[in-house]
Amino acid sequence: MARTGRRRGNVDTKRQIVDVARAQFAELGYDGVSLRGIARAAGVDPALVHHYFDGKSGLFADVMQLPVDPALALPIVLDGELDQLGERLLRFFIGLWESPETGPRMRAAFRTALSSEESSRRLGDFVAREIMTRLAARLDSDRPQLRATLTGSQLIGLAVGRYLVQVDPLTQASVEELVTATAPTLQRYLTGPLPS
Amino acid sequence: MARTGRRRGNVDTKRQIVDVARAQFAELGYDGVSLRGIARAAGVDPALVHHYFDGKSGLFADVMQLPVDPALALPIVLDGELDQLGERLLRFFIGLWESPETGPRMRAAFRTALSSEESSRRLGDFVAREIMTRLAARLDSDRPQLRATLTGSQLIGLAVGRYLVQVDPLTQASVEELVTATAPTLQRYLTGPLPS
Repeated sequence: MARTGRRRGNVDTKRQIVDVARAQFAELGYDGVSLRGIARAAGVDPALVHHYFDGKSGLFADVMQLPVDPALALPIVLDGELDQLGERLLRFFIGLWESPETGPRMRAAFRTALSSEESSRRLGDFVAREIMTRLAARLDSDRPQLRATLTGSQLIGLAVGRYLVQVDPLTQASVEELVTATAPTLQRYLTGPLPS
Repeated sequence: MARTGRRRGNVDTKRQIVDVARAQFAELGYDGVSLRGIARAAGVDPALVHHYFDGKSGLFADVMQLPVDPALALPIVLDGELDQLGERLLRFFIGLWESPETGPRMRAAFRTALSSEESSRRLGDFVAREIMTRLAARLDSDRPQLRATLTGSQLIGLAVGRYLVQVDPLTQASVEELVTATAPTLQRYLTGPLPS
């Protein structure tokens, strides 16, 4: 499918796309990038980018070495009863950090993203577009976007405290203790009263 | 007060202490460092270290370029009614990030600390020793250390979302909106029921 005859293997072409995407995300930010523009800069057919990656979200996840593409994973978590959504989000999120397969990549990706202002903003745009918007769309209360980001703030704070900065007893607590203590917070942000 | 005659100015001596302290914190971790050991390695009288810095906490704050020494600031915040502690902590913490004087240093210090595993752990030890222990000692409920770190997780999550990653509408919300939305969370962690 590649238009140029120079690249021989799929691995090379895929890596070429990722390299171009990394540069474009860095230069233009998440919202400023299009798959068509990446394909053009990489000298490949746009269909090839779609063939290798599940959309812009999947490509960004690959560039950031995120272990999951939220565009694929989140709909599964969002499906189900709204009054248990806080706990489902929490268990899914903690699972990503606890798992021996995905945990190290979560830590590495967040350390890298948080280390500079520019990469933090890029992660923020991605989170807003691909996670917060989907989460907000699932809610049927007032101020869904604020609710989604408040939920995100408690989730990322748990990750920073337990997995990055590692402050005891947050690190020593069992997953069940964490769920018991913080799921009510998430559920209140998602569906509870939000005084204005 | 310096024992050696080589160093002339206070600025040089102070910087020498900070340089030695930075190396020792990196090598030994926050808990492994003593002011006496730093004084010895810097070739100065321990009294001089105490003269320049308010204890190990103040020296660490200087090394990390934190805008405040929690050992000095926290007692003021902890003083007062326990049932308003969540809101007081929140307003103090947000104030550090919002202020034009301290905000840039908070962002820089946290970016640096979170960028590597080793510096994250060092920050974690410091936070546990100088902030969480003090906060826990102020509480008179069960599991005070877990309560303190849960409180810290929501605070740091707000900071990451609003000031580092900058996800809207968390960034656009007014301080009063944030206080209204999250102070009940902090207060529940501090003094509310914590199901086991």
